[in-house]
Amino acid sequence: MDSAATLERTLHDEIPLSQAMGVSVTDYDGTSLKLSAPLATNINHKSTAFGGSLYSLAVLCGWGMLHLKLAEAALHKHIVIQESNIRYLRPVAQDMQAECNLDDETLNKFLRTLNKHDRARLSLDVIIHNQGQPAVEFTGRYVVHG
Amino acid sequence: MDSAATLERTLHDEIPLSQAMGVSVTDYDGTSLKLSAPLATNINHKSTAFGGSLYSLAVLCGWGMLHLKLAEAALHKHIVIQESNIRYLRPVAQDMQAECNLDDETLNKFLRTLNKHDRARLSLDVIIHNQGQPAVEFTGRYVVHG
Repeated sequence: MDSAATLERTLHDEIPLSQAMGVSVTDYDGTSLKLSAPLATNINHKSTAFGGSLYSLAVLCGWGMLHLKLAEAALHKHIVIQESNIRYLRPVAQDMQAECNLDDETLNKFLRTLNKHDRARLSLDVIIHNQGQPAVEFTGRYVVHG
Repeated sequence: MDSAATLERTLHDEIPLSQAMGVSVTDYDGTSLKLSAPLATNINHKSTAFGGSLYSLAVLCGWGMLHLKLAEAALHKHIVIQESNIRYLRPVAQDMQAECNLDDETLNKFLRTLNKHDRARLSLDVIIHNQGQPAVEFTGRYVVHG
């Protein structure tokens, strides 16, 4: 499956800051998407990841998941982030890796609403770990419309 | 007052992504801090500002306000972002400008708590406009500790 490489190209082409951050798409298996970015380009004055970089990686991870799922359903729609909440539980002192999971039941319900109204909302959770422990919890509400 | 230029240098030195974004400190009058960044380096596939850039500018604006206020009080403390909420009301199709206001009463209450416990929390609102209308509303909860 070439989706990961294609998504990475899309992100870099369409959102230049993702390239400046060094974002790469590390894994996609159909239900879980992982994006990563090096600590060095996203560092802050405490030698940990900048909160804005952690947020950006998380919001792109949710966006990427939706982008892939719409492509798989052969739907060409607009994806807009409407509202997000992010909690910083502990610093991230390593390369950042964000993970977004989307189960089939939630996806199918969302796609049914989208097909019916040409507009649907989806809340996606993204998590970033540090040394195996949850470090950042992100929830984004995305709106998809035709 | 040279605080604006000093803060800009601090941001660029300590958080390299702020330099990649082209963040500049445009105004500080003691109660209001304005940060800006060009649309071009922060653009997305819809030719509007990337949601992660808007968030980053907002979180830096709140951080910068606290940084300036602690410096004015001759306090050397750590500032950590703990939790944020951001609402995207409309797209930003121009250079981004974030504004954070902090009134003396809220500041003084915060400083009293900080002096007493060597730790205090402060919620700061940041707003980004587009063509004179509110486009992004950010609230960040910062923790300051010794």
